[in-house]
Amino acid sequence: MSPEAKLKELGIELPPAPKPVGAYVTWVRTGNLVTTSGQLPWEGGVMRYPGRLGAEVDTEAGYRAARIAGLNALAQLKAAVGSLDRVKRIVRLEGYVHCTQEFRGHPRVLDGCSDLLVSAFGDRGLHTRIALGIYAMPLEACVQLVVWAEVED
Amino acid sequence: MSPEAKLKELGIELPPAPKPVGAYVTWVRTGNLVTTSGQLPWEGGVMRYPGRLGAEVDTEAGYRAARIAGLNALAQLKAAVGSLDRVKRIVRLEGYVHCTQEFRGHPRVLDGCSDLLVSAFGDRGLHTRIALGIYAMPLEACVQLVVWAEVED
Amino acid sequence: MSPEAKLKELGIELPPAPKPVGAYVTWVRTGNLVTTSGQLPWEGGVMRYPGRLGAEVDTEAGYRAARIAGLNALAQLKAAVGSLDRVKRIVRLEGYVHCTQEFRGHPRVLDGCSDLLVSAFGDRGLHTRIALGIYAMPLEACVQLVVWAEVED
Repeated sequence: MSPEAKLKELGIELPPAPKPVGAYVTWVRTGNLVTTSGQLPWEGGVMRYPGRLGAEVDTEAGYRAARIAGLNALAQLKAAVGSLDRVKRIVRLEGYVHCTQEFRGHPRVLDGCSDLLVSAFGDRGLHTRIALGIYAMPLEACVQLVVWAEVED
Repeated sequence: MSPEAKLKELGIELPPAPKPVGAYVTWVRTGNLVTTSGQLPWEGGVMRYPGRLGAEVDTEAGYRAARIAGLNALAQLKAAVGSLDRVKRIVRLEGYVHCTQEFRGHPRVLDGCSDLLVSAFGDRGLHTRIALGIYAMPLEACVQLVVWAEVED
Repeated sequence: MSPEAKLKELGIELPPAPKPVGAYVTWVRTGNLVTTSGQLPWEGGVMRYPGRLGAEVDTEAGYRAARIAGLNALAQLKAAVGSLDRVKRIVRLEGYVHCTQEFRGHPRVLDGCSDLLVSAFGDRGLHTRIALGIYAMPLEACVQLVVWAEVED
């Protein structure tokens, strides 16, 4: 089943690809690699779950925020290559989690995006990951994510 | 107009490429990709605007620091491929901003480098970007930047 | 001398490649690039030197932790391509150092991995590097490292 059909089956609608908040673009393709700009949990023009994990945002809200930011990343990949069918492999997920100094639930939060990627792409969605607890975040976002993907010729 | 002629027209002189501060190198080429090490706002051997955005460094000084670090990144790209004419596309800017917990001006600060890249390269200078607020920075730098570029065969 | 023979000569044994701590994989190959997930200082199933540089962990312990995480990264590269002989070049080291706000010894800490890479690979081990002081880290690790490598066809 194609990734987009799979998402539809799961009741997930791909959002429009969010616009940049500065003098840059939201994706670039170089050879067979596509990389996105930092994706935030924008949903219908609203920043969802603003604040810090461990304080204003609990871990399950963080999981949902990572899923929303991940959907935005998928929208960027689709914008880059026309269809998610042309994504051969998700290569890397950079997971930046805005949090308190004591917070240690980064892996669970980021699984919100990782689980989405595997739901959509199956084994082709398995990716490498970094997970960092960030001190200060633009726009008070609770997560910022970057996805790198290998795409078809 | 070539990127180097464009910079000259803008009255911008490309600095010598800064040396590393550890057991590493300042750029690597792999295939048609060049990536730099973290670039700091060194200018004439002096670290410009040391400290944190939101405390010792104001947003416009941060913008200038990001521009200086960006010039150093361009110097690394030139060292890698001989001439900026051989840069086909700026792929990615990693923007690490040393700041207070409350600071939210990361996009404006990083536009200091993004604007430079677009001034030099036009549409080929449009890049993806991440923007993170960093807790502690080597050498008390206010910004650290990495540039990835696609270069000609 | 091959990298693995060189490591043996130095009395260094490559550990088994650590498993992921979430819904992801520990390495991905795309074209001739291999990138790892964030590597932590696991040694024999134990997280070595947990805590923050500048507080619970001193700089030389941080150096040793970066070397241990670096060995885990080499184990991932070997898992990816079968033998370290097939690594043509180390491209990039991402160095995330869990630390106090005042800590400035990031370069020395990360040399623990950089020195290992050059010991194993010689000039082919010279890499670009970023060095960031991180606010909160999964599993209380004192360092998290990512290695990117170019590998043979």
